[in-house]
Amino acid sequence: MNVTVRGRTRNVRTVSFDRRRNAVLLVEQRLLPHEFRIVAAPTFRATARAISDMVVRGAGAIGATAAYGLAQGCLAFRGTSLQKFQKHVAEVFEVLKSARTTAVDPVNAMLGVQRQMAEGKTVAERQSLALAAAEAFADEDVQHCREIGAHGVSLVREGANILTHCNAGWLAFVDVGSATAPLYAAQSAGKKFHVFCDETRPRCQGASLTAWELAQQGISHQIIADNAAGLLFNRGKIDVVIVGSDRTLGRTGEVANKIGTLTKAILAHHHRVPFYVAIPLSTIDWTLSSGTEIPIEERAASEVLGAWGVTRQRRREYVRIANPSSGAYNPGFDVTPPELITGIITPAGIFKPSDLWKHRAQLGCRL
Amino acid sequence: MNVTVRGRTRNVRTVSFDRRRNAVLLVEQRLLPHEFRIVAAPTFRATARAISDMVVRGAGAIGATAAYGLAQGCLAFRGTSLQKFQKHVAEVFEVLKSARTTAVDPVNAMLGVQRQMAEGKTVAERQSLALAAAEAFADEDVQHCREIGAHGVSLVREGANILTHCNAGWLAFVDVGSATAPLYAAQSAGKKFHVFCDETRPRCQGASLTAWELAQQGISHQIIADNAAGLLFNRGKIDVVIVGSDRTLGRTGEVANKIGTLTKAILAHHHRVPFYVAIPLSTIDWTLSSGTEIPIEERAASEVLGAWGVTRQRRREYVRIANPSSGAYNPGFDVTPPELITGIITPAGIFKPSDLWKHRAQLGCRL
Repeated sequence: MNVTVRGRTRNVRTVSFDRRRNAVLLVEQRLLPHEFRIVAAPTFRATARAISDMVVRGAGAIGATAAYGLAQGCLAFRGTSLQKFQKHVAEVFEVLKSARTTAVDPVNAMLGVQRQMAEGKTVAERQSLALAAAEAFADEDVQHCREIGAHGVSLVREGANILTHCNAGWLAFVDVGSATAPLYAAQSAGKKFHVFCDETRPRCQGASLTAWELAQQGISHQIIADNAAGLLFNRGKIDVVIVGSDRTLGRTGEVANKIGTLTKAILAHHHRVPFYVAIPLSTIDWTLSSGTEIPIEERAASEVLGAWGVTRQRRREYVRIANPSSGAYNPGFDVTPPELITGIITPAGIFKPSDLWKHRAQLGCRL
Repeated sequence: MNVTVRGRTRNVRTVSFDRRRNAVLLVEQRLLPHEFRIVAAPTFRATARAISDMVVRGAGAIGATAAYGLAQGCLAFRGTSLQKFQKHVAEVFEVLKSARTTAVDPVNAMLGVQRQMAEGKTVAERQSLALAAAEAFADEDVQHCREIGAHGVSLVREGANILTHCNAGWLAFVDVGSATAPLYAAQSAGKKFHVFCDETRPRCQGASLTAWELAQQGISHQIIADNAAGLLFNRGKIDVVIVGSDRTLGRTGEVANKIGTLTKAILAHHHRVPFYVAIPLSTIDWTLSSGTEIPIEERAASEVLGAWGVTRQRRREYVRIANPSSGAYNPGFDVTPPELITGIITPAGIFKPSDLWKHRAQLGCRL
């Protein structure tokens, strides 16, 4: 997407590759929204660290980062022995895989790259195929998000008010994003609309990342405390909700996403407002048969007990908000049942959550 | 309630009066939860400033502060001329009234004091009656909260998990509190239970004030991001919700309270969990005939765009969390309709919200 820094606008991807320097280029997301910077990871180990240190986050973005990281590791190999090369590749794979052990996207992305490079007969051929596969993976991520936008654009009516939660924007993918894709498509189509961004406590990705994205694209928006959504629904100020998903169960239509998503789905249902989930096909889990099988990750209490921000002196600082002797319960996400979801916007079209299984062949299920 | 500072426990009211020094004593709430201090307002003007500067907040607490402030102003008068005294009283009244123009409690409390002191025949008698009336007002506030506790205690079952929102605790009253009264009564009755405190963005009164209160009384509790409530309801972890109210409409049973209350009521309703509102009779508005007549106060965007807290170096600091070029919409409260409310806990008993009007005589309605 376009990013304007000090009056200069350029088109940027969250993740890209500098072939000349054999470096993975990443938007340094920990500095946003206060500073925009692209950093270069000069080695595959630095790329792995960028994943583990949260320089880059979001399913699509870390998938592409790992794919590029694997290609980067391959390209750094000097020699012609296929055996030594494959041993090296296996090491690169492990290093990148262990950067974020709970995520499936890096592994899936790297398996795809490995499959394609296996067709090469020489080290040089495999190196070249690895990079081509990583580039294709990134391009495909962008293409899928564009298709989500094409299918979802009609949900964003002229003059509509849209509620979104957390960040499923282009920063979470290679470009365009999932929940934001219909918004960017609607803007391209010349539509006027307004977005309410849940701040999304405790990590505030809505207030920091989504609001930054929308501001960069010049889309009308306001940040709200997560508490304010009820009033907005009640007063008829929300026409449609669009969120992303970390994992959608293909068998049941249940949607795991950032904590607070379920609350917004219940509010939408109560007020008969349509609630959509925008996802790339890679986040559909075809194996689990119930949302209760999804373990709810419990995150650090400090996230709830305080907040990170920037002081008036522009220092980045954590402040404790809560009573010092109190603890917190901090679940990372929740699971929304299919009956609260109007539709799942995918690159292959919009489906009722209960219909995913019926259309599984079309949706890339390999079971 | 009991407050323990550096190992020393003492019984404290939010607002009290030091007759010897003719000073109003207040818990300095802006320092909580990071520091506990009682400050003395040595003149009625200082007492008015304490109200306007938010040293003290909460309907019951500012009502009692104004009542004491009026008595304090009366007692500071030197002379025997009733005419000059009444002119002075009128000035004191105006100064205290203008400290928080939107609140009705200070005015109602002071009108009560004025009514009672009018029976005095001399300045000295009126001074003495003013203080007695202020003390009676404060004692009555405490008594009403205790009665709320007595009626609400059965709602807190042994082993229950209770959700509360914002702070309707003893810090918002003279003592005991409204939403917290059933909890303190249940604790006195030897019951074990657990409280989830919504942090209550944007001002985080749940994380700071309610959590501090519960920690002081040794009640098991955890702070949650407002977003986490949906998951807790969904997993059957909430047995009952108890909140306070800024204004309850006696004619309709609608409840205006801190932003986010409506969301919790909808979540409770969706999951068939009882939702109670605890109120003193003074917060019932018998005049309005619809919640839509209640103006929704819009507060400063900065509250949503950042947070106040304490740094690791123990400096109190505001940090900006949100994207610097984004704005916020920050409504201060919302209105919950009666069909989402299981019962209103009052000093006179527990009523269905739709039955308030029927029982208006018993509930102190003077219309």
